[in-house]
Amino acid sequence: MPSIDPDIEAAIRSSFARQGFNATLGAELTRIAAGEVDIGLAFSPHLTQQNGFLHAGVVTSLADNACGYAAMSLASADQNPLAVEFKISLLSPAIGDRFEARARVLRRGKTLTVVQADVFAISSVGEQRIATLLETVILRSGEPS
Amino acid sequence: MPSIDPDIEAAIRSSFARQGFNATLGAELTRIAAGEVDIGLAFSPHLTQQNGFLHAGVVTSLADNACGYAAMSLASADQNPLAVEFKISLLSPAIGDRFEARARVLRRGKTLTVVQADVFAISSVGEQRIATLLETVILRSGEPS
Amino acid sequence: MPSIDPDIEAAIRSSFARQGFNATLGAELTRIAAGEVDIGLAFSPHLTQQNGFLHAGVVTSLADNACGYAAMSLASADQNPLAVEFKISLLSPAIGDRFEARARVLRRGKTLTVVQADVFAISSVGEQRIATLLETVILRSGEPS
Amino acid sequence: MPSIDPDIEAAIRSSFARQGFNATLGAELTRIAAGEVDIGLAFSPHLTQQNGFLHAGVVTSLADNACGYAAMSLASADQNPLAVEFKISLLSPAIGDRFEARARVLRRGKTLTVVQADVFAISSVGEQRIATLLETVILRSGEPS
Repeated sequence: MPSIDPDIEAAIRSSFARQGFNATLGAELTRIAAGEVDIGLAFSPHLTQQNGFLHAGVVTSLADNACGYAAMSLASADQNPLAVEFKISLLSPAIGDRFEARARVLRRGKTLTVVQADVFAISSVGEQRIATLLETVILRSGEPS
Repeated sequence: MPSIDPDIEAAIRSSFARQGFNATLGAELTRIAAGEVDIGLAFSPHLTQQNGFLHAGVVTSLADNACGYAAMSLASADQNPLAVEFKISLLSPAIGDRFEARARVLRRGKTLTVVQADVFAISSVGEQRIATLLETVILRSGEPS
Repeated sequence: MPSIDPDIEAAIRSSFARQGFNATLGAELTRIAAGEVDIGLAFSPHLTQQNGFLHAGVVTSLADNACGYAAMSLASADQNPLAVEFKISLLSPAIGDRFEARARVLRRGKTLTVVQADVFAISSVGEQRIATLLETVILRSGEPS
Repeated sequence: MPSIDPDIEAAIRSSFARQGFNATLGAELTRIAAGEVDIGLAFSPHLTQQNGFLHAGVVTSLADNACGYAAMSLASADQNPLAVEFKISLLSPAIGDRFEARARVLRRGKTLTVVQADVFAISSVGEQRIATLLETVILRSGEPS
């Protein structure tokens, strides 16, 4: 994986920090590379659905964010990623101590970038893929990144 | 819209209250009918993406929850809705004072229920549809509903 | 529904006629309005899946085409619609004498248009919705429309 | 990749041959393994969209079929695969001499199987991924497989 431009990495970290929702989720950027971004969080009772598992909305938020920043990692530092649409398949119940979304760009186009993210549940017994998400991102210039 | 069985309505309210994530979002059930459920929340800085709009993950969480409970509204009271997959198209930036997801069942099958939710941004100037989500829900018996 | 510009209608009919696949399917434009296009075809054994129903790929092709031309109906006559992505939920087996996809634009943006199509199976006993498709269309100028 | 049970392979070939639409497309099973199925076809003017490229509906039909049979490859020989829903991202124009969809099962569940297929355009200059599809398949017993 080619290393990432330091300006783009700084722009990603700055954009991520401006998301109020990331602090609410306790989400952290765990890896930034050119075309690949990972985001993780710890399980918490304030993020659960009715059975005590991580809420599908949280699983989705992690994966969506990882896709947006993976798209941004291949753009210029002043470009702002916005999700056009995504689809997620929930493969297994979201049971674990930590969760991590790992996104990789499938295609970088002039206007649109297509990104896929897998989400993993991590516990003492190992890790399991619990979801996969396919997203279309549009990059807009001139807006705050 | 036919009225809903009081036991099923009670089961929906109980399931909704058990979701730790709903308290985190400030989400509220605003309407329950047979095959139709609405869920709303107020804008808050702790739910934002990098431009200060409501995060796509929050928009999605609202819509996903509304779909699950819309499916449950046509099931029996001991059935637990789980999302199999969904796709969301984000039509406009999520700018508003309040947001509401309005879900309606498209097809109730023996195993799977297909539900669509529209999400609206509401402000002093009116309301605008900002997203539409299409979801497949599976209903499982015997698990805590 | 506002009436459509005759130049755009002519461009849609010309584009549709250039699709070799439409002749293969026996597909016909049954309605063109501003933001709404319907396309139909008759059941035929050369379009079936393994149980003798209409193949999901045919159901999808009808709906995808209707979405593309619905997007084109709100564009200029030299713009060419290309599908970016779509998701289809197959609600019931595709059993019928005729099938019709009915598309309507949900949002027309500068770059991207979001369109939804329902597909109906039609027989002597009436019509039934068998699928719903949500598609993102990009309109490109300067290419052959 | 573990080898496949000969009865299941025979059931897949029989089901594929019963699809009238496969003959219309000129589609062929090019590989069958446990959890992985490839299907290919040659470019033909009777399969085109308005610019002379392979129609998105054909790209989708190939990928959908490959996913269904990949799911069936892990089932019992009397089970019939039906697509519940799928989403496709069209990454590049479908320009090539041949096209091949390559499907692999992401998760086999008791009721539902989730499968992903990539579609490649193949020409004298090599091959390029032009689309990726994510599908939910339900396997039904007792129906003709």
